[in-house]
Amino acid sequence: MSNPHQIILLAHGSSDKRWCETFEKLAEPTLRSIENSAIAYMELAEPSMETIVAEAKEQGTEQFTVVPLFLAAGRHLRKDVPAMIEEIVKQHGVKMRLADPIGFNPHLGDAIRDVVQEELAKSID
Amino acid sequence: MSNPHQIILLAHGSSDKRWCETFEKLAEPTLRSIENSAIAYMELAEPSMETIVAEAKEQGTEQFTVVPLFLAAGRHLRKDVPAMIEEIVKQHGVKMRLADPIGFNPHLGDAIRDVVQEELAKSID
Repeated sequence: MSNPHQIILLAHGSSDKRWCETFEKLAEPTLRSIENSAIAYMELAEPSMETIVAEAKEQGTEQFTVVPLFLAAGRHLRKDVPAMIEEIVKQHGVKMRLADPIGFNPHLGDAIRDVVQEELAKSID
Repeated sequence: MSNPHQIILLAHGSSDKRWCETFEKLAEPTLRSIENSAIAYMELAEPSMETIVAEAKEQGTEQFTVVPLFLAAGRHLRKDVPAMIEEIVKQHGVKMRLADPIGFNPHLGDAIRDVVQEELAKSID
């Protein structure tokens, strides 16, 4: 049997394709190493969280963890996304957990330091 | 003589203190390991890039690299921030380089994968 748990990487979304491409690249290492993972957009781009949930539910998945690809939590993560999740849970009878935005995890601060060290090396060349 | 090069970590800014605290935490590993580094906000919070530049210039620093704490590039990074930098360069006679947003660097995608692996472990408990 396949893993009944699905990860949804939730990005804001934009009508600008370059914006979405950036998030698709950011998601690549996760999608490559975690079997049941997908990217979804809050607005202005597809797929939505609901699309992902509906498809996965058809395959028998009933538990979802939403990991927001946001550095910090503003109105979207405090209000809009929980409301969307509540609605999807009601519609599809699944379990969904909203994780903290990625920026709350110390791995991000460490990655930023590594990026800055590379930028500093470029600047001094 | 001190290093004449300064790193500015540029966050969006918000009137919500929790937002700024998240970015201050994200900046910590960088500020700890890179001597001439500081955080600045594009709008709605202090210090601004100009405040940092003016203070550093008084100490003899004339070169700045701005690293945007943004996952992707939207209008702010394509238009507003370059215009702000152009103005500061004119006003203060310094050199400033705008780096890519952190989300363009592969370290970020790897950090996201690590975060998701931790979230998955929590979910399965």
